[in-house]
Amino acid sequence: MRGRSGAPQLDTQQGIRRRNLSRVMYAVAAHGPLSRAAVASRIGLTRAAVSTLVDELIRSGHLDELGPERPGRVGRPGSALAMSARGPVGIGAEVGVDHLAACAVDLRGEVRVRAVRRASNRGRSPGPVLEELTALVRKVSAEAREAGMSPAGLAVAVPGLVSRDSRTVVRAPNLGWHDIDLAPLLPAELPLTVDNEANFGALAELWLGEDTPEDFLHVSAEIGVGAALVVDGRLLRGTRGFAGELGHVPIWPEGPACPCGGRGCLEQYAGQEAVLRAVGLEEREDRVELLAECADAGDETVRRALSDAGTAMGIALTGAVNLLDPRAVVLGGALSRLAPWLLPSLERELAGRTAGRACRVTASVLGPDGPLLGAAHSVARAVLDDPVGAVGAGAGGG
Amino acid sequence: MRGRSGAPQLDTQQGIRRRNLSRVMYAVAAHGPLSRAAVASRIGLTRAAVSTLVDELIRSGHLDELGPERPGRVGRPGSALAMSARGPVGIGAEVGVDHLAACAVDLRGEVRVRAVRRASNRGRSPGPVLEELTALVRKVSAEAREAGMSPAGLAVAVPGLVSRDSRTVVRAPNLGWHDIDLAPLLPAELPLTVDNEANFGALAELWLGEDTPEDFLHVSAEIGVGAALVVDGRLLRGTRGFAGELGHVPIWPEGPACPCGGRGCLEQYAGQEAVLRAVGLEEREDRVELLAECADAGDETVRRALSDAGTAMGIALTGAVNLLDPRAVVLGGALSRLAPWLLPSLERELAGRTAGRACRVTASVLGPDGPLLGAAHSVARAVLDDPVGAVGAGAGGG
Repeated sequence: MRGRSGAPQLDTQQGIRRRNLSRVMYAVAAHGPLSRAAVASRIGLTRAAVSTLVDELIRSGHLDELGPERPGRVGRPGSALAMSARGPVGIGAEVGVDHLAACAVDLRGEVRVRAVRRASNRGRSPGPVLEELTALVRKVSAEAREAGMSPAGLAVAVPGLVSRDSRTVVRAPNLGWHDIDLAPLLPAELPLTVDNEANFGALAELWLGEDTPEDFLHVSAEIGVGAALVVDGRLLRGTRGFAGELGHVPIWPEGPACPCGGRGCLEQYAGQEAVLRAVGLEEREDRVELLAECADAGDETVRRALSDAGTAMGIALTGAVNLLDPRAVVLGGALSRLAPWLLPSLERELAGRTAGRACRVTASVLGPDGPLLGAAHSVARAVLDDPVGAVGAGAGGG
Repeated sequence: MRGRSGAPQLDTQQGIRRRNLSRVMYAVAAHGPLSRAAVASRIGLTRAAVSTLVDELIRSGHLDELGPERPGRVGRPGSALAMSARGPVGIGAEVGVDHLAACAVDLRGEVRVRAVRRASNRGRSPGPVLEELTALVRKVSAEAREAGMSPAGLAVAVPGLVSRDSRTVVRAPNLGWHDIDLAPLLPAELPLTVDNEANFGALAELWLGEDTPEDFLHVSAEIGVGAALVVDGRLLRGTRGFAGELGHVPIWPEGPACPCGGRGCLEQYAGQEAVLRAVGLEEREDRVELLAECADAGDETVRRALSDAGTAMGIALTGAVNLLDPRAVVLGGALSRLAPWLLPSLERELAGRTAGRACRVTASVLGPDGPLLGAAHSVARAVLDDPVGAVGAGAGGG
């Protein structure tokens, strides 16, 4: 028999210490300020063990000691611990079809700095676009540094397929990019992760959404229709990083040809361009807002087109729900703005085709901010997951 | 921020000891007989640590010491370790639509005892069917005990959806069973796990197949069409245990009504009944063999029907490949027998619709034995994963 195992085998003292440092960080991030005793009781370690960990985290600049909790009392006062105000921040950035954005999120999950630049990036070559993005990232990083914080890394959300090297955009049809390594075009001073906007949107939903389950399908759209699958609280990325291509699930096998090479793909019925075409509206940069305003104003043609798009999404999601059995489907990104007109037909179609096996469909509360927040939070959480890994691990924990 | 983490936190001495016992077992199962020194070098622990673990596994009856490796030599001879010939065996059983089967597999992965009973179970109530299965299981267990082995548990493969309690068949349409708890109807003396035949077939493929990757989609068919998804070497089960329902992915959204409540599901085009209907053949118990023989003999009607079924499967798999990005698709179970006539049209359809994103499609080498083997191996591997868990863990390792 082959000895396959899914669990990481990091049972060294070093590995255990690093995981315990992480548990202290999560406890203080979520519930701080906390005394050492309160941390010990939350994570189930002795006070002595917690003190050693806390001392290390104070030395490395991750935690601050706020001073005695109960000044003036007799006995040994507990000293409250809090995330350092001058600690690491995660820098998130987004290349949208119609905008660029960057932000800094601290270890408590708060957005500390933010910058946006609106302009179409469609068909522009990567060089100038990423030069502008670099300027935004440097601006946000500089402001964070001025406030005493220290950027720990950069995560960039892009509207396209990203290879598992986390830096190469394999295909971003709405930008016109193919096989572009982003690393040489972005600030070299920060560790870089590039991922699909749908993946970062799904992670934001997992970490920041309201009552988000650990198993769900996150459907989002910039121009195309993308999805991301979260299973047991983790992204399912696929062998090449291409999982979640809901937009190219065949709906009508002999329907219109799709640029992907297939026929009758979901995007031919529910993509933004297909919907605009159906209603005879002209191209505009903020097309989602345009559609939403028309639907708000009672435009029957637009409402019918969105309802038809919802039906097509219901057919594609029937296949996805049958294959994956998620606890919920969440419409995120731009789709959350259009949810009121998509959901009724989508839910009708899905329920009718999956009797007894259906799952709830909701709209994200994060809206179009999801991918940018997911990117920045992914950097901040990597610090919480292994706070002193880079500086304190010596020859590695394996 | 919420402290979600996918990794189990078993960093106690107890948890580490149990994982190390498992590593010793896998090393000896895969490469034995081995000396203690060879085990130590394979798993990267000191010889002293390995000796303590080995002593415990000898005491618990999992390992045998074969005596000095190099008798007659000077110095301390290494004593070779092997899996105990009288150790635990996993009992697997299968409820097929047309047969019942049971077998015993030892910790080296060898089938030691086996029993099959052919007869249609279609429409029979669970009581008599499981009474017959119990008799088969007891026969296999008794023979294993006579040979000195000790049955460690029972895993049962069924052609239907099984709830995550691993004992209740929610829906097995080809048997006519709904919401049946199998536990009271099977031998009470063995710990029980019930699962879908497609899941056990996929696990068999993962553990026993030739060059099976850790990420693949396993498609199988008894009467319906089922699939199982393996991601990073683990089954993706879905929230309720219903993942993998490829047979009810819509192919033609306005196609024929399906008993599931949907329309135009894959099973309406590629299920065995649909194919038999298309070729005008009568119902027979061994319908797969019948179709294969006709196709072997050059029957053009049957070949065309199988080719059409392959096309429908290609459309459904396009959606699955787009969503999951697996490394491979494996046709298992009865489908492996029909693969020569399904594959050409299936691959053509899939490649045409997923230009640049396609993945290889192969037929399983395990054939219809997959689910039964997967069931028995799952019990044997549970022993390897935690060899003395039940007796040696005391108050638990968490």
